[in-house]
Amino acid sequence: MQVKEKLSNWLIAKQDEAVEFLQNTVQEASTTGNETGVQKLIAKKLEEIGLEVDMWYPDGEELANHPNFCASRTDFSYSPNVVGIWRGSGDGRSLVLNGHIDVVPEGDLNQWEHHPYSGKVIDGKLFGRGSTDMKGGNLSLLLAIQALKETGTKLKGDLYFHSVIEEESGGAGTLAAVLRGYKADAAIIPEPTNMKIFPAQQGSMWFRLTIKGKAAHGGTRYEGISAIDKAGVVLQAIKDLEMIRNKRITDPLYKDIPIPVPINVGKISGGNWPSSVPDSVVLEGRIGVAPHETLEEVKKELEDYLSNMQEPWFSKHPVAVEWFGAQWLPGSIETDHLLMNTLSKNYKQVLGEEPIIEASPWGTDGGLLSQVGNTPSIVFGPGVTAVAHYPNEYIEISKIMEAAEIIALTIYDWCGGENE
Amino acid sequence: MQVKEKLSNWLIAKQDEAVEFLQNTVQEASTTGNETGVQKLIAKKLEEIGLEVDMWYPDGEELANHPNFCASRTDFSYSPNVVGIWRGSGDGRSLVLNGHIDVVPEGDLNQWEHHPYSGKVIDGKLFGRGSTDMKGGNLSLLLAIQALKETGTKLKGDLYFHSVIEEESGGAGTLAAVLRGYKADAAIIPEPTNMKIFPAQQGSMWFRLTIKGKAAHGGTRYEGISAIDKAGVVLQAIKDLEMIRNKRITDPLYKDIPIPVPINVGKISGGNWPSSVPDSVVLEGRIGVAPHETLEEVKKELEDYLSNMQEPWFSKHPVAVEWFGAQWLPGSIETDHLLMNTLSKNYKQVLGEEPIIEASPWGTDGGLLSQVGNTPSIVFGPGVTAVAHYPNEYIEISKIMEAAEIIALTIYDWCGGENE
Repeated sequence: MQVKEKLSNWLIAKQDEAVEFLQNTVQEASTTGNETGVQKLIAKKLEEIGLEVDMWYPDGEELANHPNFCASRTDFSYSPNVVGIWRGSGDGRSLVLNGHIDVVPEGDLNQWEHHPYSGKVIDGKLFGRGSTDMKGGNLSLLLAIQALKETGTKLKGDLYFHSVIEEESGGAGTLAAVLRGYKADAAIIPEPTNMKIFPAQQGSMWFRLTIKGKAAHGGTRYEGISAIDKAGVVLQAIKDLEMIRNKRITDPLYKDIPIPVPINVGKISGGNWPSSVPDSVVLEGRIGVAPHETLEEVKKELEDYLSNMQEPWFSKHPVAVEWFGAQWLPGSIETDHLLMNTLSKNYKQVLGEEPIIEASPWGTDGGLLSQVGNTPSIVFGPGVTAVAHYPNEYIEISKIMEAAEIIALTIYDWCGGENE
Repeated sequence: MQVKEKLSNWLIAKQDEAVEFLQNTVQEASTTGNETGVQKLIAKKLEEIGLEVDMWYPDGEELANHPNFCASRTDFSYSPNVVGIWRGSGDGRSLVLNGHIDVVPEGDLNQWEHHPYSGKVIDGKLFGRGSTDMKGGNLSLLLAIQALKETGTKLKGDLYFHSVIEEESGGAGTLAAVLRGYKADAAIIPEPTNMKIFPAQQGSMWFRLTIKGKAAHGGTRYEGISAIDKAGVVLQAIKDLEMIRNKRITDPLYKDIPIPVPINVGKISGGNWPSSVPDSVVLEGRIGVAPHETLEEVKKELEDYLSNMQEPWFSKHPVAVEWFGAQWLPGSIETDHLLMNTLSKNYKQVLGEEPIIEASPWGTDGGLLSQVGNTPSIVFGPGVTAVAHYPNEYIEISKIMEAAEIIALTIYDWCGGENE
């Protein structure tokens, strides 16, 4: 029997057990600070599969010294990282399989049809916060490893399974794993890509702009300068800059993406009295960072653009720019990288069609893996992009199984598998 | 000795005593709900002067039934109104002298050079919250009455001195006084006009607009509709409507006013996450109401204008319009009204120059007096328009004394004075 057939049969036989495991992990509401329960489940599963397990609580004080540390906390006392290690026999290519275990908050319960941590299965879909982003993708990884193990596979190269915290808040979990030495020749991250393959991932940063006006009574508003009006000028400048930045991007990976690296203004607030001219407006937003750019270059470009606005008001009252909150490094791997070819070949073998290869519109831990861990990364996973971070998040179970098979074959090829 | 000379001499003699009284009233921080202390001072002063005094706590539950009631509370248990009555001998014109005793909050203490309730006098200016708006103006009224009394004047018409609460929050104090019967043939309100005479006062209302968008991830912002962008369209529509409304105003009173009835957007807030496309923005503002307009007409004009915006988005997602918070009726008196002529004549007699006659850019209790109390009102007072509601509010003592003399002579002429 061929390897593919063995793996496929094993997966079919184990689907029900796999779904139950996913329900268990979704039922652990692993928002920031609450990751212990689910990490213990993962560690136990890795032991059962037969991997060496390293579970540790990252030292936030030490991590905070790293230039790429970005988190809203330094205390990870209740937030362990888990890595499962499958040592190869030697002389093979090593691989990281990386998935984050933290989930974004469930938000307004009224918008959920079922409880967000139910893990309810209806018509082949499993519902719940984290199902798509990305416990379902992590399950594909675990199934791939378990299928290889239980069908008697041996690997030449080392395999590292990362179950990390903090991806949603800036990647401190992956940073900790990389700094602990869990790096490899390449990586796969099964974030929810709708089964598309993303060799390039957009980075991003958050900015805060403070725009000044001049207060006056609303009845004599012509005696003041409205910071809301001036914010309108700044918003237009941001649109102009977005156009300039995106015109530069000619990589064919972006050919079907309307705006490869958008600048989004997500929050606005200003003024404090309906009948006063507002003297201050604050905008908060996110700027996309292209794979070839550094964060520093992009910061400088936005700052320079805003400081060169033509209106005389702004020369006397420059827009204040702050960089705050989370940031994600961009990541990329060559489109003709051997892992790209291997993954694409196996995708075609399992699904009978060519994969869609595109650039990712959002950042992942692939930026840290590539840039800090020197581990070029591909993002490819079974989740549904559109429901990540939204109420009624779900994943299709059939996609999890398909991704597991594709990834298992890819591990086999990449790490040098041998099967009795 | 002429009446003017007697009054003038009396005022010169009493200036120091008057300043001390103003200090006492400014030192009473009569923000909303804290008016008892200062009203007791006023009532005592009125008794000393020899007026009949009516001090009462308005019945908020009853007032709330009136269509022009507008307040953030219905409990006035600690907020008395005071009216002083000088009954005329009969057959004369009656007059209301109206001043509010409530002050707006002092705001950030760090922005005040002296304590906001110090009443400190430096170089002829008395500093403190409420000095200009409008305890200084009220003092001009009290001095005018006292000067007439103490120089032996008798009046034919009745004189009512209103010391009212709630002007800053919608006028419930004046409404209560009017409904209690304290109306007259005309009124003078010494709000801070820089000694200008305002026969017309702009009314105003507050509005809240809710603008919808469609949420999306900031990295794919092209999949959403930014409510901030749509707010930009609404802000432009508001500017357009403001222009249309102001082009209609041809009254020469407004000839030196850049925008007779402005529409001011004072607050904006929207979105809740930097990297999400914002799906809602709320604008709060104030629309000016011209003297000849009704509040209902103006509400309808804004609502209709916003519901006729051309962008298809708004036909499916109409802008929600709410009217909230305070509102002030516009007020006006004919520019050739006898009280206008009398006041202008006395202004010229005291100051030796023609008064500036203009329209007021803000609402006062004159709207309620005119429209509910059928008491046409002139706004004319010694305060400094620019410092009302601001830190380091002050008033020039000399202006208080000048206004007192002008008003005393006007009372004498209007109410039919007789002097031994």
